[in-house]
Amino acid sequence: MSKLDFISRQFSKTEKKRFEHYSVTRIWHLLDDLSIKFVTQQYISRPEGYALTDMFFPQLQVHVEIDEGYHLAPIQINRDVFREVDIINATGHEIFRVDVTKCIEEINEQISQIVKQIKSKKEIMTDFKPWDIEAETSTKTYIDKGFIHLKDDCAFRTMVDAANCFGNNFKAKGIWKGSAKHPKESDKLIWFPKLYKNGRWNNSISNDETKIREICELPEFAKQHIDSVLNGVHHKRIVFARVKSPLGDIMYRFKGEYELDKNSTNYEDGLLWKRISEQIKTYSSD
Amino acid sequence: MSKLDFISRQFSKTEKKRFEHYSVTRIWHLLDDLSIKFVTQQYISRPEGYALTDMFFPQLQVHVEIDEGYHLAPIQINRDVFREVDIINATGHEIFRVDVTKCIEEINEQISQIVKQIKSKKEIMTDFKPWDIEAETSTKTYIDKGFIHLKDDCAFRTMVDAANCFGNNFKAKGIWKGSAKHPKESDKLIWFPKLYKNGRWNNSISNDETKIREICELPEFAKQHIDSVLNGVHHKRIVFARVKSPLGDIMYRFKGEYELDKNSTNYEDGLLWKRISEQIKTYSSD
Repeated sequence: MSKLDFISRQFSKTEKKRFEHYSVTRIWHLLDDLSIKFVTQQYISRPEGYALTDMFFPQLQVHVEIDEGYHLAPIQINRDVFREVDIINATGHEIFRVDVTKCIEEINEQISQIVKQIKSKKEIMTDFKPWDIEAETSTKTYIDKGFIHLKDDCAFRTMVDAANCFGNNFKAKGIWKGSAKHPKESDKLIWFPKLYKNGRWNNSISNDETKIREICELPEFAKQHIDSVLNGVHHKRIVFARVKSPLGDIMYRFKGEYELDKNSTNYEDGLLWKRISEQIKTYSSD
Repeated sequence: MSKLDFISRQFSKTEKKRFEHYSVTRIWHLLDDLSIKFVTQQYISRPEGYALTDMFFPQLQVHVEIDEGYHLAPIQINRDVFREVDIINATGHEIFRVDVTKCIEEINEQISQIVKQIKSKKEIMTDFKPWDIEAETSTKTYIDKGFIHLKDDCAFRTMVDAANCFGNNFKAKGIWKGSAKHPKESDKLIWFPKLYKNGRWNNSISNDETKIREICELPEFAKQHIDSVLNGVHHKRIVFARVKSPLGDIMYRFKGEYELDKNSTNYEDGLLWKRISEQIKTYSSD
């Protein structure tokens, strides 16, 4: 996918809200910097569920929220403030706001200020990595780097691309199972769960993403599955959750390394996995 | 309507073509000048029918055409060149082109050049009038000015607004007929035709807009209508054609002053009106 393709598809996601769309296109064109990535309508985990933010710059950890008229009713203001606090709490990110109930001259001035702040935020970052749309979903990028961290906002297009970050050398376009072995660390699996109800499985992740509950809803199979995991050797899992990308494609997003919590695992509640690391070592297949 | 409303509605007209949309939003935001008006998908009359151009700056008489991939097949290139020549012939306007089959860096560079040229075109104009979204559809603007010229790209929201430019003082929101008398010049009517087939009428305008054919398709009424016009005193008409505005609203667009051509008028072909002036004097109602 080219940057033009990516950017223009991001624009078209906002086109139903005209003022949001005006603001998003203006911020991006005035920023005028192809080394900066943005996505629109990014999901952010919050203590109480998820929120969408209107525009997100992942390298800079900056969000822009466009306040349409309905945002500004008193109840909505409170909700927005809570949401903002939640997002900051959940992510440590910064949030800028555009009030699009103002006249166009004032909106343009607000956007100029935001663009300035985004530019200076990039300038003072010591570890800014230019947006590379090919490299960001490439196995080689993460093998060369030596690790994957949550901050990398890492997502692969296939399970093979993810599994090959750990010494595997799969050739196929797809993996037909929900996990792959880790050839270098024998106590770990590379796991590709759907973290929502799906067929016989009902997996979920906590809002702060530190816990994954793995539940099989087929009673006769559930017990057997739990026993086999408890008695098996793979009590750690590197998690790439199956998600929809900002553009609606399926991707496998890195969520960290999780370990089985045996004390909280039982036949009623299923298996509980707790995050033990936000960063994981990568290996070449040589 | 506010400028924000107008601009964001113009943007949303292009949103189905993503690269056109990328280019239009980029040109506008980088131009960054609220004194300049633009419309997207403007109809231009050509020797052979009509053409749409992707972006049009009426004050500067500049069009921008976005060349998507399909434009560049050899046959299409020829068509585009003909179309460009046609548009220049028909209007005397200037046309810039963006080739969006290139990479984003090249597209951005092309757009920078176009923005520069538009800015300098504005600077060297001696009679540039800043975009005033209220004034451009206001009766008072044209009474104060003393005339309406085709170059003014003048269109009113109601027939009353148009009729009141000539000394009338109508109060109603609408006029219930297809024409109004000219209180200052007794040989003229102010005419609001639909220049397309519509009920019993089948009126049309030539591609160069110098001739209007007025045909009534009800045989018994047609003859009577032609006779009454021929024998009447109103052999000149100031024409405001009923059209859809760039945003889809009904508007009444100034087309010039036309005079009855008796020699070309007959019971078979109906009435023929020939344009005799591109400019018409306005009057206050005092």
